[in-house]
Amino acid sequence: MIRYDRGQGPDANWIVSEGAFDSRFLGKCEAIFAQGNGYLGQRAALEEDYVGQIRNLFVTGTFNRFADNEVTELPNLPDLTRVRILVDGRPFSMDRGRLLAYHRSLNLKTGEVVREVELETPEGKRLALEARRFVSLKDEHLLGFRLSITALAGNLDLRLESGINGQVTNTGSQHFQEGDKRLLKGRFLRMTSTTTQSGVVCALHAVHSFRLDGQPLPDAPHPVIDRRSLLIQQDARLQEGQTLVMEKLCSVHTSRDLAWHGQDISPADIEEGGLASISWAADLRYEGLFDRSRAAWARLWDNQDIEVVSDSGFDQLALRFALYHLNIMIKKDDPRVGVAAKGLTGEGYKGHSFWDTEIFILPYFTFTQPEAARSLLTYRYLTLQGARDKARENGYTGAMYPWESAWLTDGEVTPLWGAADIETGEPMKIWTGIIEQHISADIAYAVWQYYEATGDAAFMAEMGYEIILDTARFWASRATWNEEKAQFEYLGVIGPDEYKEHVDNNAFTNYMAAWNMKKALRIIRDLRQHQPDTYKRLNQLLSLDAAEPQLKKMLEGLYLPQPNQEGILPQFDGYFDLETIDLAPYKAQADVGSIYRDYNNTRLRQIQVAKQADVLVLFFLLEELFPQALKERNYHYHEARTLHDSSLSKSTHAVLASDLGLHDIAYDFFLGSARIDLGPSMRSSDMGIHAAAMGGIWQAAVYGFGGIRQTASHLRIAPHLPASWHSLRFPLVYQGQPLKIQVFQDRLRIQHLGDKPLQAEIWGQQREIAPGTVLEVEKEG
Amino acid sequence: MIRYDRGQGPDANWIVSEGAFDSRFLGKCEAIFAQGNGYLGQRAALEEDYVGQIRNLFVTGTFNRFADNEVTELPNLPDLTRVRILVDGRPFSMDRGRLLAYHRSLNLKTGEVVREVELETPEGKRLALEARRFVSLKDEHLLGFRLSITALAGNLDLRLESGINGQVTNTGSQHFQEGDKRLLKGRFLRMTSTTTQSGVVCALHAVHSFRLDGQPLPDAPHPVIDRRSLLIQQDARLQEGQTLVMEKLCSVHTSRDLAWHGQDISPADIEEGGLASISWAADLRYEGLFDRSRAAWARLWDNQDIEVVSDSGFDQLALRFALYHLNIMIKKDDPRVGVAAKGLTGEGYKGHSFWDTEIFILPYFTFTQPEAARSLLTYRYLTLQGARDKARENGYTGAMYPWESAWLTDGEVTPLWGAADIETGEPMKIWTGIIEQHISADIAYAVWQYYEATGDAAFMAEMGYEIILDTARFWASRATWNEEKAQFEYLGVIGPDEYKEHVDNNAFTNYMAAWNMKKALRIIRDLRQHQPDTYKRLNQLLSLDAAEPQLKKMLEGLYLPQPNQEGILPQFDGYFDLETIDLAPYKAQADVGSIYRDYNNTRLRQIQVAKQADVLVLFFLLEELFPQALKERNYHYHEARTLHDSSLSKSTHAVLASDLGLHDIAYDFFLGSARIDLGPSMRSSDMGIHAAAMGGIWQAAVYGFGGIRQTASHLRIAPHLPASWHSLRFPLVYQGQPLKIQVFQDRLRIQHLGDKPLQAEIWGQQREIAPGTVLEVEKEG
Repeated sequence: MIRYDRGQGPDANWIVSEGAFDSRFLGKCEAIFAQGNGYLGQRAALEEDYVGQIRNLFVTGTFNRFADNEVTELPNLPDLTRVRILVDGRPFSMDRGRLLAYHRSLNLKTGEVVREVELETPEGKRLALEARRFVSLKDEHLLGFRLSITALAGNLDLRLESGINGQVTNTGSQHFQEGDKRLLKGRFLRMTSTTTQSGVVCALHAVHSFRLDGQPLPDAPHPVIDRRSLLIQQDARLQEGQTLVMEKLCSVHTSRDLAWHGQDISPADIEEGGLASISWAADLRYEGLFDRSRAAWARLWDNQDIEVVSDSGFDQLALRFALYHLNIMIKKDDPRVGVAAKGLTGEGYKGHSFWDTEIFILPYFTFTQPEAARSLLTYRYLTLQGARDKARENGYTGAMYPWESAWLTDGEVTPLWGAADIETGEPMKIWTGIIEQHISADIAYAVWQYYEATGDAAFMAEMGYEIILDTARFWASRATWNEEKAQFEYLGVIGPDEYKEHVDNNAFTNYMAAWNMKKALRIIRDLRQHQPDTYKRLNQLLSLDAAEPQLKKMLEGLYLPQPNQEGILPQFDGYFDLETIDLAPYKAQADVGSIYRDYNNTRLRQIQVAKQADVLVLFFLLEELFPQALKERNYHYHEARTLHDSSLSKSTHAVLASDLGLHDIAYDFFLGSARIDLGPSMRSSDMGIHAAAMGGIWQAAVYGFGGIRQTASHLRIAPHLPASWHSLRFPLVYQGQPLKIQVFQDRLRIQHLGDKPLQAEIWGQQREIAPGTVLEVEKEG
Repeated sequence: MIRYDRGQGPDANWIVSEGAFDSRFLGKCEAIFAQGNGYLGQRAALEEDYVGQIRNLFVTGTFNRFADNEVTELPNLPDLTRVRILVDGRPFSMDRGRLLAYHRSLNLKTGEVVREVELETPEGKRLALEARRFVSLKDEHLLGFRLSITALAGNLDLRLESGINGQVTNTGSQHFQEGDKRLLKGRFLRMTSTTTQSGVVCALHAVHSFRLDGQPLPDAPHPVIDRRSLLIQQDARLQEGQTLVMEKLCSVHTSRDLAWHGQDISPADIEEGGLASISWAADLRYEGLFDRSRAAWARLWDNQDIEVVSDSGFDQLALRFALYHLNIMIKKDDPRVGVAAKGLTGEGYKGHSFWDTEIFILPYFTFTQPEAARSLLTYRYLTLQGARDKARENGYTGAMYPWESAWLTDGEVTPLWGAADIETGEPMKIWTGIIEQHISADIAYAVWQYYEATGDAAFMAEMGYEIILDTARFWASRATWNEEKAQFEYLGVIGPDEYKEHVDNNAFTNYMAAWNMKKALRIIRDLRQHQPDTYKRLNQLLSLDAAEPQLKKMLEGLYLPQPNQEGILPQFDGYFDLETIDLAPYKAQADVGSIYRDYNNTRLRQIQVAKQADVLVLFFLLEELFPQALKERNYHYHEARTLHDSSLSKSTHAVLASDLGLHDIAYDFFLGSARIDLGPSMRSSDMGIHAAAMGGIWQAAVYGFGGIRQTASHLRIAPHLPASWHSLRFPLVYQGQPLKIQVFQDRLRIQHLGDKPLQAEIWGQQREIAPGTVLEVEKEG
């Protein structure tokens, strides 16, 4: 086990540090040290090859389908990270020889990953290697690599082989047709390739420079062209004490770049753009380019940093780690793309967007970068047609959002088949794409949350109302009349807890559907009254006049699960009849999913056990519907039956625990969320970081400890820090007004950086915060 | 450098032995220890993973084209060789810990590959590993693996992960759509996949069994299904001294199997065939199946072995090594498939057939297994339509054979672009598919050679005449009239020496074309006279009446390059005007292609340097046209200018040197041919063994030292053994009559195992060999 912890020195809480190397666990660090800028994502595979590595380079939105029986996925572009390093004819590897020193770190402040190695080869040579890399936050098409090798003892004959390698696949599926491979102007490598089905042209360029003790080498490198591979080979002889430095700068351009959107471009345009970009980069060199990226990171942190003073520096590190990944996982200005469940850090979930976006990730953007949140919701607006098609194909009306979403026109992209059932050995059908339907209400909810937090009426008129109204129409068409009980029901769904398939009246689903329909009715009423033009347009599009009575009837007749005599809300019909087993062994698990070794899906359905928060998410999202005592009782009942096998689980528990005054438990769940990627489980991040958990860390801190919540009319602030925390300072944008909120154990400070007064309920008291002022409030009792 | 040499013990000359392990050079042993049976070919990748390994499994004839801008190639099927071995949670690797003992061998007699390893882990455990495997020569769909691990010091917690892995590609191109993945009857793994363009369905099955000290394990293995991957995971705890044995049997079936040819089958048929086959295999277990394969090998060797008694056992080993590979590289009963240039041992040349087949490989089969030779020539007959189409597309008539040939209907499959020019950095156009045209004459030549050696008149009437006649028509249409010199010429071709593109009147091409047309004229005359029905059919098809005068005119007018005043035949027009450089540094090269580091293609064209025998192949094939003195002079002139950068070069030199009485040199070239794959160049076999070199080793021995040659009327035998050889015994089939010929330094023995008397010219004397007798002849002088 390797610990991922703080670095050293004054920036210790900015640096995620890996102090030991173990080639069994490459995936962990490849994912959590991944770099990007929302446009592209670069997994942190090491330069030299190791068995089990996964080299990934993704560009947002470049989805492709390999074959008719697969779904679209984000294709893995040709690799730029690999450098074959031959030392005296033998491949450099940290598994060969004696590793005298090793350190790798991700500097969250600058976005740079640095590896420092000292190695004694089995042949008795000693060398130092330093590898640095960044993906530019400023110049989104550019990446830089810098590799230094110093001969510490003995002379070294080095050969470096580096370039562009298009032999990579997505777990075996090759998404690209080979295009052009050539050396331009004697030094720029170019590889062009085109996705096989979606026809996205990708042009990659790379340029290398070599210096031995600061001097250019006498011999130019030698190009090596192979199938899907364009490399250069550079030989150098190092005398003891000398250092060879290779700088490699790369650019990535595609025909799907936002800059080209709607334009009629040719592959030549993209190639020219790439060449211009790499030529410009070559003059700036690594340091010049990196300076620009570092400055962009500094500006971002100026706005976005959350400062924690606590007994453990890990708390601070974890928050910054989450913010780092939240800020590189989306292209904030491109409404054609969503958030991948693994960000751009791995092949897991194929780059698809789930409800993770709206419920776990979006709040961070809504409350700190509302323009990015608007872009993400616009993505959902632009995929409405697919949602309408899906509803129609399933026999419903309105908008039924895909459970998994990719490119705008892809529609539902959930794969139909998954892993094997341990008893029958047969692949199991994946039902989520068909019956995990709550996502339509989740998106509607997020739209309204965005509206309440931002007051962005233009967005609502243009897109937001349409989403809420059409998802409500879906819910109205989706319900089933139960003659016996004289109620409408939602039968055969999957709720948030994915252990349970085909359940009836999942509480979360029914309440969220009711919320969605109720909100739609209010919108219909309000629009008709106050925005007749908008009403008219939407009425034409969605037949609101006809929908309104239908929605009313459904809403009145819809069954909403009620607490039993002990005050416990059933997760779905018949939940209390399910078997109760001792979950202690699985709750104590080191890695998720241990229960699958003993129970298959069929058996799991018969047990009161949840993969993740289900009923509790309902309490979190629709908190005003349920009294505190009911929440408390249910929290204890359901948490005891939850394995937190989903990365979406712990943050919800952290917020609820905090709300319920279970402060130590809340802190434990905050740490638990942070440890999903930064913790000791060496395998769980292999397929990429957990994007929702990053949003969850923010929610645990800001919603939970910061006690931030919005109500229909105002901001509510009721913080409570964990015992070991001394202060928490975070930015917030509410109704377009930027705030800095600093919370202490016994008081808080709100700095109003905007220009309009704001109402807030602070620890139960209504306060007005004047622009340009700092409001200090002492906690009572 | 690792030496590949003879094994130990009584079977030493049957065993190719690798005595040391170096993970830099995996490809060498993966290729030369490859196993197969003509239906399938299995590269000898190690069980555990190493950086740089290439896992290959090919089934003959299953060609697929990945994309429109690629050519068809033999796709790499899902891998069966890989076993992940975890020892106390860490991957077993010979690069980790102390390798106390290592030995790997390919037993040519039995077809089994065995690896024996003793390793001390860095954690201080000691273990022995023995891995055995075979591809059944008897049951062509079946493969077997057997892995034993013994705890020598300390207890071991083992985990083995094994199954079917479809994530492999051909250098990045994925040829398969995923199909079914499932576990049948609790133990049979099945993976079905379909090639993306050609629609070939492949069904792979695997079954595992585990025994600890002979006893079944208490816990069944655990299936692990992932994308394109179906594995089982088995844990076992070994006490010190205990041995765990895993047996893995696999079957491979495809919709292109000969058994299904012409039938309307469904994937279900193939899956059922596979399941039946693997179920049957499971009962026999490794040993039972292997016994059947070993017996088939014994029968093959009984017929095919060539015995050498010489000072160096390597001579014997090299010959058996060649015979082994010759016998697993083709499916002898399937006329729909040719011979891949790398056999079924690697991705090099994409499984395509070249002139290597007819000129270098076919003679072995023609003279030892004529039915296999007939099948290979039938393959050319079945591709005639493509040859006709190619001629038409290029503006010619007749049959212009593809330079590279794949599936029957694929036509020309030479890729258009190759590696980069070192000066311009741009990919170079591959001209062979367009202008390396001698292959059409080479195929015609091989047809006639087969006919002369076998007397198979039925083949000629049905197929052979048509090939010779229609290639002759191509040559007639291909010539250009030179008004000034009043002659027909072949301009802008590539001869055997591929350094030289776009040459005029390449001697080899012109003479072979003349031979082809001359033979056609004789056939036209003979058929018209003696086989009027055949003539009528072919006349209708090929307009022979019209072709005859045309052929005559061409043949009379065709320019045949003549020796200069020094008696040297120019390789092509203007050859003697080219520059002469000092080739010594390149002749002394360790690896082929060293001249490319200093000269690009354009420069090479200006120098008197050849990649391989060119003029000399002409002397070899059409020996009766040239006097001995001319051959001798030309041998010295051209050999001095040849780098032998092609694996087709040395064997021709060996035969010619032997003919010319240069016996030491001939022996050196024999060894040189053997060392193309068995020698110290650790990289040259990476993409697969050199199929033509295997045929060349046979030619060097049987044509060269054995002095076998056929003339129009009889067999000629004029052996001369190298000084260090005491005897050479080889089988030969001539005119359907099986012979065993044993050659000594001063005499020979011919055992006639057939039923008809044979005429032979032995050391210049005409002799008759009576059936059932042994003829002994002393060498004169």
